[in-house]
Amino acid sequence: MFSPMIRELMESLRCLPGVGPRSAQRMALHLLERDRDGAVRLSAALKQAAEGVGRCQHCRTLTEEKVCQICANPGRDEKLLCIVENPSDVMAFEQAGGFSGRYFVLMGHLSPIDGIGPEDIGIEQMLKTVADNRVDEVILATNPTVEGEATAHYIAEELKSLGVTTSRIAHGVPLGGELEFVDGGTLAHALAGRKKVEI
Amino acid sequence: MFSPMIRELMESLRCLPGVGPRSAQRMALHLLERDRDGAVRLSAALKQAAEGVGRCQHCRTLTEEKVCQICANPGRDEKLLCIVENPSDVMAFEQAGGFSGRYFVLMGHLSPIDGIGPEDIGIEQMLKTVADNRVDEVILATNPTVEGEATAHYIAEELKSLGVTTSRIAHGVPLGGELEFVDGGTLAHALAGRKKVEI
Repeated sequence: MFSPMIRELMESLRCLPGVGPRSAQRMALHLLERDRDGAVRLSAALKQAAEGVGRCQHCRTLTEEKVCQICANPGRDEKLLCIVENPSDVMAFEQAGGFSGRYFVLMGHLSPIDGIGPEDIGIEQMLKTVADNRVDEVILATNPTVEGEATAHYIAEELKSLGVTTSRIAHGVPLGGELEFVDGGTLAHALAGRKKVEI
Repeated sequence: MFSPMIRELMESLRCLPGVGPRSAQRMALHLLERDRDGAVRLSAALKQAAEGVGRCQHCRTLTEEKVCQICANPGRDEKLLCIVENPSDVMAFEQAGGFSGRYFVLMGHLSPIDGIGPEDIGIEQMLKTVADNRVDEVILATNPTVEGEATAHYIAEELKSLGVTTSRIAHGVPLGGELEFVDGGTLAHALAGRKKVEI
């Protein structure tokens, strides 16, 4: 019963993750009834970003600049390279603080079933970066999932011949919360990776 | 740490109801990494709707046409007028089925605190429609909230002098579910509005 333009808006909103038909209807009517300026601004931002955002030449993260802000920062240690799957992982590490090296963003993980091989996640480019910058240590910070572990393992194998130190972020119980709610796999990892308490 | 275009996209997405900073980040990265076509389509739909959608001349609902599809349908009974607050209420009644009259959409409710008076919700126009079409019955289907009830009461007063039958949709326990989970106000209404069982 909605007019074609409103229906098209509702259908288009479904491309957003987590937005079903009810949310799309609520969003469309909200914008049309109460926030047309917001709709116009969002329209412009979407067009601009979809057409303008590419990849950082060095780390492959999403940016409209040739080189992202982190890679362009001379204060960041180029001898320390942290490999992550997604731009949001870079954001998470930056918000946590404490890392002064650089990143390399795979923009995914190895997934032979989906036809995603090493060339699709920039392994060549990453190896070249490691060699060119004479990186001292590569930190594998892919996700603690089956695909993330497999990707980390593959990269570690590739790095072996370059004689670079390779490390994996620690797996264990997260801070806060209670042990009884931690899943078995994590607990097993935490036990196996236990460290001697030095007093 | 995101580039200006990506930050602008994330901020613009916040105009959508129910979208906080985390959802906005997830949505922006999803579109840029995996669905640029969707982003371009959504951008066009937003612009088109924000600039093109106006109000139906007869019932005030949102549409880009001069007259909405329901008002343009000669099969709908113009002697029966259902007054609702929002276009989504029209949708709800149409999906429920069983109503063959026309609607009048207030696009809000009376709210003196927010400076929304009778002229803002089209009361003049509604009274003119009732007189012009010689409407037999006006059904007040504003929301069962304090503002909706007040608006219904105000409209009923205004209609008194026109000699038109005015009715309010029934309040009571919704179908499905169990009585113990129905709130007290609804139960009290359901009791007060009880009907004799005819056998």
